[in-house]
Order: sequence, then structure tokens, then C-alpha cells
Amino acid sequence: MIAAALTIARYATAHPATGTYAHLSLEVARALIDTVGVAVAGRLEPVSAIALKYGAGAGATATAQAWGRRDPLPPQAAAFYNGVAGHVLDYDDVSSPLRGHPSIALLPPLVALAQARDLPGAQLVDAYVVGFEILVKLARAMVHEHYAKGWHATTTLGTVAAAVACARLLGLSEMQTVHAIGIAVGQAAGTRGNFGTMAKSFQAGHCAASGLRAALLAELGMDAAIDALDGSQGFMRLYGQHEPLAPVLAGLGIEPPELASSGIEIKKYPLCYATHRSLDGILDLRREHGLTAQDVEAVHIVSNHRGMVPLIHDRPATGLEAKFSMPYAISAALLDGKINFASFKDEAVQRPAIQDLMPRITRHEDEQPTTARWNRLLVRLRGGQILEKEVRQLRGSNDLPLSEDALREKWRDCLQHGGLRPADGEAFFAQALRLERMPVRALMALVPGD
Amino acid sequence: MIAAALTIARYATAHPATGTYAHLSLEVARALIDTVGVAVAGRLEPVSAIALKYGAGAGATATAQAWGRRDPLPPQAAAFYNGVAGHVLDYDDVSSPLRGHPSIALLPPLVALAQARDLPGAQLVDAYVVGFEILVKLARAMVHEHYAKGWHATTTLGTVAAAVACARLLGLSEMQTVHAIGIAVGQAAGTRGNFGTMAKSFQAGHCAASGLRAALLAELGMDAAIDALDGSQGFMRLYGQHEPLAPVLAGLGIEPPELASSGIEIKKYPLCYATHRSLDGILDLRREHGLTAQDVEAVHIVSNHRGMVPLIHDRPATGLEAKFSMPYAISAALLDGKINFASFKDEAVQRPAIQDLMPRITRHEDEQPTTARWNRLLVRLRGGQILEKEVRQLRGSNDLPLSEDALREKWRDCLQHGGLRPADGEAFFAQALRLERMPVRALMALVPGD
Repeated sequence: MIAAALTIARYATAHPATGTYAHLSLEVARALIDTVGVAVAGRLEPVSAIALKYGAGAGATATAQAWGRRDPLPPQAAAFYNGVAGHVLDYDDVSSPLRGHPSIALLPPLVALAQARDLPGAQLVDAYVVGFEILVKLARAMVHEHYAKGWHATTTLGTVAAAVACARLLGLSEMQTVHAIGIAVGQAAGTRGNFGTMAKSFQAGHCAASGLRAALLAELGMDAAIDALDGSQGFMRLYGQHEPLAPVLAGLGIEPPELASSGIEIKKYPLCYATHRSLDGILDLRREHGLTAQDVEAVHIVSNHRGMVPLIHDRPATGLEAKFSMPYAISAALLDGKINFASFKDEAVQRPAIQDLMPRITRHEDEQPTTARWNRLLVRLRGGQILEKEVRQLRGSNDLPLSEDALREKWRDCLQHGGLRPADGEAFFAQALRLERMPVRALMALVPGD
Repeated sequence: MIAAALTIARYATAHPATGTYAHLSLEVARALIDTVGVAVAGRLEPVSAIALKYGAGAGATATAQAWGRRDPLPPQAAAFYNGVAGHVLDYDDVSSPLRGHPSIALLPPLVALAQARDLPGAQLVDAYVVGFEILVKLARAMVHEHYAKGWHATTTLGTVAAAVACARLLGLSEMQTVHAIGIAVGQAAGTRGNFGTMAKSFQAGHCAASGLRAALLAELGMDAAIDALDGSQGFMRLYGQHEPLAPVLAGLGIEPPELASSGIEIKKYPLCYATHRSLDGILDLRREHGLTAQDVEAVHIVSNHRGMVPLIHDRPATGLEAKFSMPYAISAALLDGKINFASFKDEAVQRPAIQDLMPRITRHEDEQPTTARWNRLLVRLRGGQILEKEVRQLRGSNDLPLSEDALREKWRDCLQHGGLRPADGEAFFAQALRLERMPVRALMALVPGD
């Protein structure tokens, strides 16, 4: 059966000649007169004034940075662009309780806003912590069913959380913050059905811009329903199963912030998460034993139950396939001693040494259902010796944060992949670590771009 | 129990001093470095180029009109503003099968786009017909449960329909149109929980801008899931009950367009719909019999079962209350011979002649459940004579369209309410009726504004 969208598209693009529906033009003309008339009648209403001010002002001045670009953009265009560019590689940070990516929802709007208003980094820190808190709390209440049904949790929950974060950054009052949440609910969207297309990263950009918009409009005086989250026609009902929020919100401001307790997981390698524990393990073994690819006869990887589901390519031929391949990940790590963007060029995948290694990497999943994830490596050396390693923690997670060096290595690799000189990013890296003492505008001016 | 949004707002606005979360600033700094780095890495991806182009270009040039305002806005800001201003009075046109307002979803983006691209009115007509078609077809498939659950059908379905309409106006290809639909699905939002606040008209503006955005991004090359509407994680599943679309789409392009068959209902009076049939009836009786308020001793109105549910004010004291009052509507119609914006000024409601008349207007609802709506009027004159009138059809609906004079009267009243001179709108009114022969840019330049 053809997709409904295609049926609609066929209909919509049929008879493209101007005037196909000329016999209905009076209907449309009357609708036009009536709609314009009613809008003119409504032009003096307070909400119309807000919409106008917003469209003409807040959106228009180019005061924020598209990261890695030289020319500034209006704040919302910057939030949108940075959300898209920051999510398209799926390499941005993750939160397990969210089942999604926290920073891509929060940082593009916060940074754009802080640049536009010339705010100190310390305020951005506070706003991020608050936004992260709400994002994870909402997720704890509802995300399991929500994500399973097909919602893109990063962007649906992210819009609300970004609005709260921006409200905090703007110093909005309690009631303005409530309104920002309601306006955010009126924009929350994003489906997993769009995963695997550009629309996935679009949804991240849209979320970032929507959260910003909600806070800016609340600041201008727009109101919304107070129970937009938990009312009978609110967010929890429409996007969830009407789960109660009180239990997850009870600890707000009392318990340690989610950013301290559950924290952020920074992805260490630019490929599928399901390879990361094994990559840590093989790189450790390589270092600890001074191994080269030559020394290794075979590697066998065992993971927890269903731990390798996304790894569908055992003999990848392209960089894109290699992103979902355990044999490639292990082979490249053994051969090169590192995994970075360069590992996923087609030429890198097609190297004879790699093609020779890959058949010697085997894998299977454990049968016993478990929730905690683990990878176990068995390396048989040419001399017959067997090395073993079990990896449970994920490097980059809250329990095992990336070292400053590892973070710098990723940062430099990102600049390189983006076609910029890694050395030009040193100042930003150093100053960003002092974020709470930096003006955001000055800091972001250090991101190299062309 | 307090609203969750309020709990969140209390948390977010507590400890507003900069540096409350300074102990977590390194976490945020690392997230910032990582997120910016990943975005820089992603900056050369095709979707990032689209986002940049869109933010810098399509959104920035002020080429479209805020209706009733002099200064132009960027197209999306215009679509947003016109959506807000056009919906805030709830006086914009209606479609019964949609359970919502078709033109406010379709015309703000179409007009803004047609102005920006300098397109002929005939193309706008075609695009409107196509957008209306999809809007009503989607509604026929799903709107009953969807609206009942709490979705704002005008804006959820409207975003998709507006995207299709704009795709048609831009002359996008079939596959670009499919992508526009998928991008629209990634933005579809709006809840009835926000009704009664500014966020309701905000949602209309957001819908208009989102539909436009979807088509512009698809034109720039953004893709989305082909089955974003009917896939297992698509629109029909997330926003409906996964109803099949094939049955309602089967007649597309074969059966007469919905605009011809179900058509548009133009609201004739600026108050609750539940009074409209009685208003038509009493104004007809007044005209037919040369009645004045003096002649009338009492009026009794009977409606179909539940036909007067929203009419909660029998003795209104303010204009806002009077919008939901049958006794006021009938009294003002009898006294003034018309109902327009001026009828809902507080002074008009508080006139002694009105306060004297209102107690003589009584009403009740019929007990028999019916679906078709009707109002029956019984007017007892001073002389004892009884006049009767039953009204079934709604004036302004497809079956009984407003006369050109009635439409002009509403148009002029709208200008007046918006603080403009009604006479200045004559040229637009006349030329808009020839829409299919007018360039949209020239036509919209005729809308008066300050």
C-alpha cells in the first residue's frame, strides 16, 4: 500500500496549471476577504501586538552565532540551525533516563539567547541545570510509553524543558514561566517515524527554536493555560498516558539536581553506541599489552541480551554501514589505535588490512535477559595466549566521565570533520571550561568558523 | 492540587541569583564544548546547509504584509502574526467536518508566500482548494476522537494541510510534497487545554508558520519519512487511533472538491455560534413585520437538544459575557436591527432599554436528542399576536452563503473594530472578489493599515 503522504502528494501536484480550480475562486476570495477582515478586526488585541512585536523585533536582529559559521543569525534562526547541525551526526550528548539528547534541546536556545542579551556564563549554567532537571523529571514520569509509541522524546519533552530553561535565563516571573510552559506545550512535536531522514535533526532544531519562542512570547506578555501540562486536555494526557507529575516533581530543589545525579553521557566515538563498551575494552587491551593488529588471531565479543541489535553490518563496505558494525569497529581500533571521524571514510573501511581483519572478529549476544549492559572481549593472540576483558561502565557517562584529554580529542576531531583547523579551537576549549566566569558572547566569539 | 507547570515554575524561578548552580558549571561547560563541537562537525552536512539558508534567507526579508499594518514582515513572521490576529476573536471561518477553522490555517501562509514570490491569485486559489481538501479529508478520517481527546484540530491537522497547500503554491514536486508533509508532521501541535488563553490564537499562528516552513524546507531539499502520516510511528498513530487514510483519500481528484461540497462557513455575527440561527430568525421577523422592540412583549426560543450549552449568561453585564447570552443577542437584535462589534461594548450591554428587554426573552432546549441543529422562535406581540419562525440552516454556511452585502457589512465592521476607516477597504473588497485575476501582491497592498 502506498504511503498516505504520497497519495496526497500525487493529488496536490496533479494538474499544476494555474487556474485548475478557477471555478472555486469566488469561494476562496470570500474566505480571503473574511479572514483578512477578521484579522484586521483582531489587530488591536493584546496577543496580536505580541505576535507583531515578536515577528518584527525578537526574531529579526542577527545577534547570535551559527556555530562554526562566521555570519551571525537572528537568535531563533541560530537556535534552529545549531539544533539541526548539532544533531545531524547523532554524536551529541545523551541522557539515559530521557532516552534522548539533552544538550541539543537546551544549549542552542540558551546560547542564542545569552548571546543576544549579553548574559554571563553563570546564568547560562543555572538555566541549563534547571532545564536539564525538568527534561529528566518529565522523562521519568512518562518517557517509556511515550517513546515506545513513536514520539521523539528529545524534541517533545525538550520543547517544554527548553522553554523552562530560557524562562530561567530571561529571569521571567513564576507566572510568566507557567505561560512559557503552556506556549511550549502548544508547539511540542517530533516523531520517531522521521528517524533516518533529515527531519530528525530538523525536529531538534525546531524544538530548540520553539522553546526559545515560548519564553520570548511569555516575556512579551502572552499567556497560556496554567494546567497545560497536567490538565485533562494537557501535555501528559495527549503525549502520555496522563501519568501524574507530582511524584517526580516532589524532589525539585530538595534532592540533588539530575545533572549531578544522573548526569550527561558524552559520546566518545562517532558510531553506534552498541560498540562503545567493546571499543573501550579493545583500546585498553591494546594499550595495556602493547598489541598490534599483527599479534591478534581472533577476537570474540559477547554482549548482554539484545546488546547488539543495531549492529546489522558484519562486513561493511562503506563508512555509513561501518557505523553499525562491531567487526569494523574492533578491526579499526586494533589497526589504528583510535576511532574517529576519519575511521568512517569509505576508503578507511575498504583498506585491505581491515578487510583481512574483519572475518576474525566474531560476536554473539548472551541469552539471559538483563537490564544492565555489558560487553565481554576474548582476544586470542598468535602465540595462543588469551586476553579477557569485561566492560560494564560506559566511558563518557556520569560514572566515568571523559578525561579532559579525551574531550579535547573529540572537540578537535569535530572541528576537523567540519572542515576547520583544530588548532583554532584551543581558545574556545580552554575558556569554555571556565564558563561560569565568562560572558557568553565573548566565549562564543572564540568558536572558529568560516 | 497545584498545576504541574506551577510547581515547575516555582522551582525554576527560585534562587534567581546568578551562580546558584556554580558547582555544576564544569558539567555544563563540557556539554557546551561537546555540543558545539558536534555541531561544527555537522556543519557541512546537507541538512545543516538547508537550516542555515532557511534561517539567513527565507526568514529574513520583509516581503509580506501583516494585515492591517503598514510595515511588511518576513513571510513567516507575517504568517504567524496573521494567524494570531485572525484567530484571536474567534470570528474567522469554520468547517463543520474539521471541527475548526480552515482559512486561518491556510490563508496566512499562502498569502505570505504568494506575496514574497509575487504569485498570481489563480495559483493561490488552486493551492487553497488543495489545502482545504487535505484538511477536511484528514478530519473525516480522525477528527472526532482527536478533538475529543483534547487536540486543537485546526492547528494539528492544519499544519499538515498548510504544508500541502504551500507545496502546491510553490510548485514543489511530488516527492518534495511528501517531504513537506513529513516535516509538517514533525511540527504538528496545539491543545484545547490552551483554549481561553492567548495561546489558542498563538497555536493558529504557529500552525500557519509551521506549514509554510515545511514547504520552504522541502523546497530547499530537506527530506522526511515517506510514511510520516500513516506509518507505525506516524501522525495517525500519535495524534489519532491509527485510523486508515485510504478510504477518505480514495476520492481525491475524482469527487468534487470539499470546498465545493462541504464548503466554508463564514461567521455572520461576532458572538457564540449557538445564537446565530435565532439571530437570523429574529432579524427576519423584524424585517418582515416591521417590528420594533416596543411591539414585542416576549420571545421564547427553543433549540435542539444541547443546542444552547455554551450560552451560560442570561443576564450579562459586560460585552464579554454578552457573547454567550441568548437574551442579550435577541434583545440587541430587536432594538438595533443588527448585531456587530459595537453590540459587545460594555455600554451597549448596559443600556436601560436592553436591561428592560432581556427578562422578556426566555429559552429552553428540546429533550429529544437530534444531530441536525435548529432554533424555533415564538414572538408574542403587545397586541397578543404570536409570530413563529423555525431556522435550520445556518446563514453563512455552504448551503446558504452570505450575500455579498452581508459579507461587505462584516468586512467594514471588522475594519472599524480594528480602528481603521471602513471606506478605505472598498478597493480590497472589490478586487479580492476577482482574486483569480489579481496578483496577490497588488491585492494585499489594498488592505488598509497603519
